[in-house]
Amino acid sequence: MSREQQVLDRIERARRRRPVVRDERITMAHGAGGKATRTLVEAVFVEAFGNPLLAPLGDGATLPAGAGDLAFTTDAFVVSPLFFPGGDIGDLAVNGTVNDLAMCGARPRYLSAGFILEEGFPVADLRRVTASMAAAASAAGVTIVTGDTKVVERGKADGCYVTTTGVGTVEHAFSAARPGDAVIVSGPIGEHGAAIMLARGDFGIEGDIASDTAPLHGLALALLEAVPGQVRALRDATRGGVATVLNELAGTAGLSITVEEDTLPVRPPVTGVCELLGLDPLYVACEGRFVAVVAGEHAERAVETLRGHALGAQAAVIGRVEEGNPGMVLLRTGFGGTRVVDVLVGDPLPRIC
Amino acid sequence: MSREQQVLDRIERARRRRPVVRDERITMAHGAGGKATRTLVEAVFVEAFGNPLLAPLGDGATLPAGAGDLAFTTDAFVVSPLFFPGGDIGDLAVNGTVNDLAMCGARPRYLSAGFILEEGFPVADLRRVTASMAAAASAAGVTIVTGDTKVVERGKADGCYVTTTGVGTVEHAFSAARPGDAVIVSGPIGEHGAAIMLARGDFGIEGDIASDTAPLHGLALALLEAVPGQVRALRDATRGGVATVLNELAGTAGLSITVEEDTLPVRPPVTGVCELLGLDPLYVACEGRFVAVVAGEHAERAVETLRGHALGAQAAVIGRVEEGNPGMVLLRTGFGGTRVVDVLVGDPLPRIC
Repeated sequence: MSREQQVLDRIERARRRRPVVRDERITMAHGAGGKATRTLVEAVFVEAFGNPLLAPLGDGATLPAGAGDLAFTTDAFVVSPLFFPGGDIGDLAVNGTVNDLAMCGARPRYLSAGFILEEGFPVADLRRVTASMAAAASAAGVTIVTGDTKVVERGKADGCYVTTTGVGTVEHAFSAARPGDAVIVSGPIGEHGAAIMLARGDFGIEGDIASDTAPLHGLALALLEAVPGQVRALRDATRGGVATVLNELAGTAGLSITVEEDTLPVRPPVTGVCELLGLDPLYVACEGRFVAVVAGEHAERAVETLRGHALGAQAAVIGRVEEGNPGMVLLRTGFGGTRVVDVLVGDPLPRIC
Repeated sequence: MSREQQVLDRIERARRRRPVVRDERITMAHGAGGKATRTLVEAVFVEAFGNPLLAPLGDGATLPAGAGDLAFTTDAFVVSPLFFPGGDIGDLAVNGTVNDLAMCGARPRYLSAGFILEEGFPVADLRRVTASMAAAASAAGVTIVTGDTKVVERGKADGCYVTTTGVGTVEHAFSAARPGDAVIVSGPIGEHGAAIMLARGDFGIEGDIASDTAPLHGLALALLEAVPGQVRALRDATRGGVATVLNELAGTAGLSITVEEDTLPVRPPVTGVCELLGLDPLYVACEGRFVAVVAGEHAERAVETLRGHALGAQAAVIGRVEEGNPGMVLLRTGFGGTRVVDVLVGDPLPRIC
């Protein structure tokens, strides 16, 4: 056998082997697009997400033809720390994009995932993130069909940033909000933001709070089907919290929203942490709660439907859409006073998603 | 007028004003999802990308119903420096995603853009990037319909990372490669990677090389229409260069590819820089070139078609698909020798896209 033939045989045997990442940490070569990238993609990403649409590993995935409008949404995730009680950057990213599709009245279908990895990031941590993404995708019935990986030098990117983009099929349309509509939240607020602040340990306080990260498409579709044509808007209350979402809803409707403070579902540990940190739970992010605006006469049925679902067990009407003061959100406090609830100003809670 | 009414009036007037970013630099608040984020999105992103699908600024965009399969692709961009001869991270990101769609035989339609910004990044630089993205999107006939912005602390993210995801409508299918097929490159290779290395100034050498970043959908569609059913595969030769793409093509086909070194189009300044840096141009990234595998008897017509287009003026047949040595790429050198061309190993050119 000639020397050249020996080399060719060796390469051929290597090609047939199932790829294994031998490095314990991410290196710049994993982002170079060559052999190390290919191995990482096959041994970590395909291993975790494996499905027929992803398998060809081409420049993009081909999605089978469907009918009807598509919802299309993207989110960059830079949460710190990457792992926290209740979740990690992986399920947070998948759920976040699934939820944005659900908020468009769409059934989530396909996801892409772009990774920016820091040189030195443990491959074991990357596997934890991808396993978490795979589990979240499976729970939400979506398929991760394409992706990309880049590596930046040590000291950049805090281990891992993930950008997920989703495509869903639009199944429901929304009607314009009107005075008398009910404003509903699907569950207790502020848990994700509070959990991240505690996980960071900067404040030397502890508490039993886990992130509420969850896929909301099931809950959203259940609501949309229970009161067809009666849902005016759905918004997941992420960065900026419920207060910011209410302001956006009031602004879009050209109406005002009055919230009854006593009706806001907030769990006692969240109230406690917010008091210690001087935060208002209305501005603290959720990652598994939405705000729904529903025709007033269907509010009861809407809340019942949400409460029949594990993720909506504590759903509640928190306020009403009203005429006048267009774009304004007002809070009626327990003491009978009224104050303006503006959008979030500044950044009291950085890097929570 | 009551004090409360005065406050309400002031807020209402503020709401009606066209938003202006007063900060000269990105702050953490721009990523918090509140007022500063909203202002940045309206004053910078909507200003640059403004279109009816983006305008609602909801959780996602709704894409009008179409028929047929969709192509879906994502890319994270971390190029350093952000601005370089021939382009910047903005047009690189748009063109990169447009090209991945084109390589799927699709007409690029819609893009999303996820930004990870570094605290302190000049807003003027962000405007340069978004203006460049808008120009590239317009040139490629795509619409940027949704996006997201996060901010990380000073020292992270090198100013700006951009992840673009694209959706296109599949218009052409590919047939399997066969022995005798011609391997064509659409133009001179290695210019993007060489331009970035020079722009970084690490090597103390100078040269007149600009990135070849360009949208390839027009060139790709022209080829696919000129020799219908005769194009076996299209791949843009980005990270890992032409050598890595050829290996992927050979691997997928289960055939070998033999390249004639003398036929490789490489411009003299690129050859010069590669010699100085000890690089092989076959491994240096392009961002405006593709490799096409075309039925041998249609190769001439294919090259003619490409040469009739400004971006394909120096297209050339560089090799053939052959039987035997499945998955292997061989290079016949000018001296009559033959060597194996493997995929890129290691990372001689980090952060070039």
